[in-house]
Order: sequence, then C-alpha cells, then structure tokens
Amino acid sequence: MKLHQISQLLSGELSTGSNPDFEITGIGKIESAQSNEITFIANPVYEKFFSGTSAGCVIVSKKFNALLYKRLDDRIVPLIKVEDPYLAFLTLLDVLSPKTELQKIGIDQTARISDTAEISNIDVRIGANAFIGELVKIGDRVSILPNTVILAGAEIADDVLIYPNVTIYNGCKIGSRVIIHSGTVIGSDGFGQAKNPDGTYQKIPQKGIVVIEDDVEIGANCSIDRATIGETIIRKGVKLDNMIQIAHNVEIGENTVIASQTGIAGSTKIGANCMIGGKVGIVGHISICDNVILTAATNVSKSITKPGMYSGYRAQPMQSELRQEAIIRSLSKKK
Amino acid sequence: MKLHQISQLLSGELSTGSNPDFEITGIGKIESAQSNEITFIANPVYEKFFSGTSAGCVIVSKKFNALLYKRLDDRIVPLIKVEDPYLAFLTLLDVLSPKTELQKIGIDQTARISDTAEISNIDVRIGANAFIGELVKIGDRVSILPNTVILAGAEIADDVLIYPNVTIYNGCKIGSRVIIHSGTVIGSDGFGQAKNPDGTYQKIPQKGIVVIEDDVEIGANCSIDRATIGETIIRKGVKLDNMIQIAHNVEIGENTVIASQTGIAGSTKIGANCMIGGKVGIVGHISICDNVILTAATNVSKSITKPGMYSGYRAQPMQSELRQEAIIRSLSKKK
Amino acid sequence: MKLHQISQLLSGELSTGSNPDFEITGIGKIESAQSNEITFIANPVYEKFFSGTSAGCVIVSKKFNALLYKRLDDRIVPLIKVEDPYLAFLTLLDVLSPKTELQKIGIDQTARISDTAEISNIDVRIGANAFIGELVKIGDRVSILPNTVILAGAEIADDVLIYPNVTIYNGCKIGSRVIIHSGTVIGSDGFGQAKNPDGTYQKIPQKGIVVIEDDVEIGANCSIDRATIGETIIRKGVKLDNMIQIAHNVEIGENTVIASQTGIAGSTKIGANCMIGGKVGIVGHISICDNVILTAATNVSKSITKPGMYSGYRAQPMQSELRQEAIIRSLSKKK
Repeated sequence: MKLHQISQLLSGELSTGSNPDFEITGIGKIESAQSNEITFIANPVYEKFFSGTSAGCVIVSKKFNALLYKRLDDRIVPLIKVEDPYLAFLTLLDVLSPKTELQKIGIDQTARISDTAEISNIDVRIGANAFIGELVKIGDRVSILPNTVILAGAEIADDVLIYPNVTIYNGCKIGSRVIIHSGTVIGSDGFGQAKNPDGTYQKIPQKGIVVIEDDVEIGANCSIDRATIGETIIRKGVKLDNMIQIAHNVEIGENTVIASQTGIAGSTKIGANCMIGGKVGIVGHISICDNVILTAATNVSKSITKPGMYSGYRAQPMQSELRQEAIIRSLSKKK
Repeated sequence: MKLHQISQLLSGELSTGSNPDFEITGIGKIESAQSNEITFIANPVYEKFFSGTSAGCVIVSKKFNALLYKRLDDRIVPLIKVEDPYLAFLTLLDVLSPKTELQKIGIDQTARISDTAEISNIDVRIGANAFIGELVKIGDRVSILPNTVILAGAEIADDVLIYPNVTIYNGCKIGSRVIIHSGTVIGSDGFGQAKNPDGTYQKIPQKGIVVIEDDVEIGANCSIDRATIGETIIRKGVKLDNMIQIAHNVEIGENTVIASQTGIAGSTKIGANCMIGGKVGIVGHISICDNVILTAATNVSKSITKPGMYSGYRAQPMQSELRQEAIIRSLSKKK
Repeated sequence: MKLHQISQLLSGELSTGSNPDFEITGIGKIESAQSNEITFIANPVYEKFFSGTSAGCVIVSKKFNALLYKRLDDRIVPLIKVEDPYLAFLTLLDVLSPKTELQKIGIDQTARISDTAEISNIDVRIGANAFIGELVKIGDRVSILPNTVILAGAEIADDVLIYPNVTIYNGCKIGSRVIIHSGTVIGSDGFGQAKNPDGTYQKIPQKGIVVIEDDVEIGANCSIDRATIGETIIRKGVKLDNMIQIAHNVEIGENTVIASQTGIAGSTKIGANCMIGGKVGIVGHISICDNVILTAATNVSKSITKPGMYSGYRAQPMQSELRQEAIIRSLSKKK
C-alpha cells in the first residue's frame, strides 16, 4: 500500500517532502520496524525511539514535532499526522495484516452434524471433526472451527466465531457477533450439591441454561456454568479474558470487562460498565452496582452499592486500603 | 403432571379448595413462574414474593401460613405442604424437567476405538470423534460424549458420564457413577523438574496414575496430575467445582467439596468432609485433617491438625484473622 | 533387571553379601515397595522407613549407614550406594517403567491434514481426529495425539510431544523437544479492547504470534495469548505447570519455572532463572529481573530490579513482609 493511500485511508496528512508512492508492506513496532514497514507513536513514552527508528513511515498525532528529536542518521522520516494515532494504527492493522483463512466456507466432510440441526446456508463454516447435536440452530456467516462440540438444542445467532475445542452444552444461547476462544466451556453444570445427613452429597440437577448476548467476546479456557433453573446471563458487549469462572445463575451487566483468572460465585449480579481486574474473586449471592472498578487480586465478599474503585484482600475503597497498608509498613520499620 | 400426582410423589398435603386435576407443565422461580408452573419457598427470604406470584402451585413447609401474606389479586394459590420444600423441589426438578438425550446408545461411526479396548455391551454410549485407546476398559451404561479422548489402559467403571472434550491419560482409573465435565484433564504429568548444575531443568518422569473413586463429580476445565510414582487419589464422594488444580500425589478425603479455582500442590493430603472455598491455595507436602473449612481465597502453607474454620492470606483460625483485620482498619482511622 | 545390572547402570556399589542376580521388576515407595521392587532414600526424613521396608533393594547415598537402623526383621537389605540417590532413581524410573505407546508412528486415517501442510516423513505420529491446517510445518519425530488442532501456518520443530485436545492457533512457532499437555491453548487473541465514547468496546486486532523456544514444557489447561503485534515469547528451557495465563506480548526468560494458576498480564517481561510459585499474579507492563523467587500467591504490581525472594499480597522482600505479619499478629494478641 502506498503512502498516499494510507494517508487517505486514515484521513491524515503526509509530511511534505515524502514520496507518496513509497510502498509499505507491513506494520512494526517503533523499535524494530523495517524500512518497508509503518509504525506509530500514540504514547509520548515512545517518542524517544523516533531518533533511531528505521520505519518507512511513522503515524503521529498532530501535535508531534519531529524537530525536537535529532535523528541518528540524516534520513527525513515520512510522517502521517492524524487526530488519534492509536485508532489510526488499529485501522491500518486490520487492513495491512495478512488475512489467514482459518476455515473454508462449507461443512467439512468429517464434521458430524445431526439431521435435525438447522444450519443457515449463508456462508457458514463448520470445521473438521466438529460436532453439531440434535435441534441445534446455527445462523448466517457463523464459523465453527475444528473439534468444537455443540450439544443438543443450543442456538447460535449470526456472525459468530467459535475457535477449536470449545464445548457448548445443550440448550445454551449465543448472540450475534460473539467470539469464543479455544478450551472454553459454556453450560456445564453449576456446582450444586446438597449435603445428606450421612455426610455424602446429592447432586442438585442443573436444569437452566446460559445466555450469551450480542457482541460478547470470551477468552480461552473459561467456564460458564448453566443456571440451576433460569439463566446465567452475560449481557451485550461484555468482554471476558482467559480462564474466567462464571458460576450458575450469575448475571454480568452490559459492557463490563473482566481480566484473566477472575471467578464469580453463584447467583451474584455484576452491574454494567464495570472493570474487573485479573485474579479477582467475588462470592456468591451478592450484587456489584454499575461503574465499579476492582483492581487485580481483590476479593469481594459483600455487595458494593457505590461506584468507585475497590481493592484489597478483602475489598475496601481503594484509598482506605492503601492507607492501611502504609501504616502496617511504617509500624514494621519503627520496631 | 396433575397436582394430586405431584402431592403424592412428594408425600405432601394439597391445600383444601385446590383443583387436584390442575395440570403443571414446568418449574419456575417464585418471582417469574407462569400459571402452569409450580414453584417453592424453602428460604423465608422468598416468602415476600408469595403475594404476587403467578405460579399454579407453591410447595411450602408445613409451618408456612398463607394468611400472613395478602395476595395482590384474589386468587387462592394452591399449596403443597411438605417436610422439606427444597428436597421436594429437587425431586420434582428431576421428574418434571425435559430430558435431553445428549448421546444415543451405541458407538458413533466416527468414534475411533482401539481393537484391544474392552467395552461393555450394556447400554454404552460413545459419541462422535471420541477416541478410546489400546486396552482401555469401559463399564456398563457409560456415556462418553463427542471428542473426548481416553488414552491407553485407562479404566472406566459403570454408570460414568464424561462430557465432550475431556482428556483422560493412560492408565488412570475412574470409579462408578463419576461425572466429568468438559475441558477437564486427568492424568497429565505432575510438575516434576530437577535443576541441573547449569541452571537448566531435567524432567522427572511421572510414572504413576490418577485414581478417581466412586461418586465423584469433577467440574469443567480442571487439571488432576498423575503421581510421580504411585497414585493421585480423589476419594469416594468428593465434589470438585470448575478449574481446580490437583497436583501429583495429592490425596483428597471422602466427601470433601472444593469450590472453583482452588489449587492443591504436590503430595498434600486433604482429610474427609472438608469444605474448601473458591480460589484457595494449599502448598505441597502438608496435611489438612478431617472436617476443616477454608473460606474463599485462603492460602494454607502449614499443616492443619484441628477441625474448624480457617481464613486469611496466610491461613489462621478465622476469629484471629478477623480480629487482626479489625485492628488494622481501626489504626488507619485514628491517624 | 538384575541387581548387578542396576548397580552398573547407576555407577553404584552393591553392598557385599547381596545376590547380584536378584531380579528387580519395578519401583516402589520405601513405605510400600514389594520384595521384587527397588526403592531409594534421598531425603534423610525417609531413613526412618528403612527398618521396615520390604523392598528388594534400596538406593542410598555413600554416607548412609545401615547399622544405625535396626531392621524389624532379620533380613539384610541389599543396598546400592551412589553419589546422588535421587538422580539415580530418576534414571532407573525411566529405564524400569513400562513404556506406554500412546500413538503409533504414522498418520491416523481419521486425522484431517491439509494438502498444503509440510509434514516430515521421519517417525511422525498424528493421532485420530487431529487437525493440521494449511501450510503447517511439522518436524521429525513429532507426536500429535488425538483431537489436537493446529491451525494454519503454525510451525512445529523436531521431537515435540503434544497431548490430546490441545489448540495451537495460526502462525505460532513451537521449538524442538517441547512438551504440551492437554487442554492448553497457544495463540488465542490477547485481551485488547479499546473503549468507545459510548461505553462499548472495540476489539483491537491481535496480529502477532506466540513463539515457544526449545526444551519448554507446558502443563495442562494453560492459555498463552498471541501478541498484538510482534511475539509473545517463552524462552528456551522454561517449565510451566498447569492452568497458567500468559497474556499478549509477555516474555519469559530462559530456564524460569512457574507453578500452577499463576497469571502474567500483558507486555510484562520476566527474567531468566526465576522461580515463580503457584497462584502468583503479575500486572502488565513491568519487568522482573533474573533470579527472582516469588512465593506462592504473591501479587506483583511494580517492576522488580534486584534478585531475591519476594512475597505478600502486595509483593515485598520476603523478610519485610513476614515481619509485618508478625507485628499484626502480636497487636491482635495485646488487645
């Protein structure tokens, strides 16, 4: 792609003296980009690399002043100035990256499809050794990669991408444009065990389902349990990282993001627009309101009713928790 | 199912004035049940919903007094009074829920079965693209769902249910009535690495097995490592939630229950009838006695020899730990 | 194997009076070994079992003095004295253990191999229902067990062993002699989500890869995300336990070992020769220098620039952290 084409695509401004026909063939990091690659500076921390970069062009903000950085060689580096270099970079990343076709349109001959499954005939991809059970419904332009299993009665809406080795249990519902990464299990039985008088446990049947609404992304090796009765619900736009545990009857509000290795116990309700760090633990049967931020490794054992930032081995408003830690550290120095 | 049939099944008492031939077709939550559904009140917290429920019948305890709750409409709600409403509900849940047949009896044509495997001919189900290795033994009425892999020499007793995408390594033994959810790995190598003088590591061969005794349930995406020599043992009646790590040579005692994301390091022995919360960490080479309760996110680095409840970032008896936390919080308020 | 053969194999010294032709058929633990099995004492803690062991031979260090332990019977136990009993035991474990052939040489008829994949013809094993995508390269003596999926363009060097139900995403590179256990996912998308003004999130394309260098072992159910651009790198000789999360653009230095359930957030760089315990959490965009030890359940939120041992809910040098804990515990006793 030529520099003038890139500049146009990004609604940017190519620096004077640059060769508009120079050909860019890839994207690199500013420290290591080659002369035929383009790079970007979105964070001022990276401006220091400008002096030495070998990149064929650098996308910068309109405020960037190249004169402040003496180049190590005499080369005048072509710049494209844009409003938001990071957003421009994302756009370009999608355009310039080589596309890998992971799955051909059509149903692989080794996939095992039930006769009663209803599969759209618009651009569906079903990979090798995938399994589609009785009465499963699959929408338009869905891609199901090799060795994924979808059990009886599950419903997959349109434009869904499911990577290999995923398991979706019977009856669960997946919204449009959902992405699910490998190893994730959706709809396994909730952990319901009733204690008998002799100390053994009786399994409580788990008869509900999981509902994943539109535009959700779920990372690798997550577990989302089906409800005992009713639904475990992941609302529209939620983004889950890898290895997250969502127990039965949990509800996660719209546009909440959760980082890796966090676990949420049964029947807890998380609000919308929350940001939950990695390794967070949240006990069962509580509520977290909208707009709560939980820092990494926080454990929450009571409901949170006010928006704000919380942290700690037992969650508190972050300021209190940091003050306590400072006091403990100072105590230990006095003695 | 008619009300008089349900009442008889539960050994309950149908309230006078109810129509014994009224047909119930499903189960609902008290807040949302429809007029053809039955619901229950086991926890007094839910009694407040009685006034507005649309359910066609409510299962209640013998002490429940409907007169205390003024209905929002004039309908007289049929009641079935029983000793234990929750137990009655569980019974009904199993009877009334639609049964989903996840796997037909027989061996799917795409399953890959070794010639030397010994498979019972009594009601065994083996799903699509499953793999059964050399010399594997499979008992009566076992269900193995699609894409599950059972490696050479593993033994599966009777009435076992293994969901899709499970891996059972060579030589491991699974008892009767065991349930294993998707993504779980049983018998992977223990983490044994001996440091060489040059800083590299030499793998210590892991030659033992995993033994899962009868009536164990294992959630999704768990990892249970094989012993270095001998056996990693999960005793009769143990219930494991999702994403639990059991390292090599660990032993878990009978009827112990463990919640999600807990990890137990190598050679540690857990007693019987313990209740271990989510995200608990237990170091290797220690013992936990019978009847210990560990609250969520507790870390245990020393053996526990007295039954009781323990908690904390470094486990202590729960009362001590809570007292310390109160002191810390009060210190920070003084200053 | 006869005692004199074992002694010779281990460069050891068989105790006088022992029958050099005595046949050993297996290996046992000192507490439970049978009369035809061999055992060992590497840790003095186990010397107390010497008096009662039924083992047919015991491997001991050159300093071991059998006269200090009165036998419960009158049997004189054959000994093999060696420099390092544990190393000797490891050698023997490999030699004496029954070999299980998990996968035959050749490509199973049910494996689905792309026409454009380049697969070595030297002793490669590809199991049932495995999937090998377009342009994948597979080296000599590689074993890929049943139901594992390797997506387009991934490269697997020589002597690699990949257990069942593993997923390797497109373009990732796996070095020689790497071992990957079941359920592990390599190359899933990094957790990159840019917030839009309306509170929804836009996916940041993840266009990099994962590079696993030579001699790495990865346990079960791990997740290693691909880089946004560039590479997530696991250096030569790294050993990972089960259920470890490695985020996008992370780099782990040579010969670092990491125990189960640890998570490392995006772009963090871990040095060489580190030992990281289980359930450790490390935030993104920091560095840990070489030769750092992090005890189990430590959370690290700032870079570590000095070698040493660190611990705590918020990592500190271990001595400081233990002192603070002692102070807190004493405060609570005073009151």
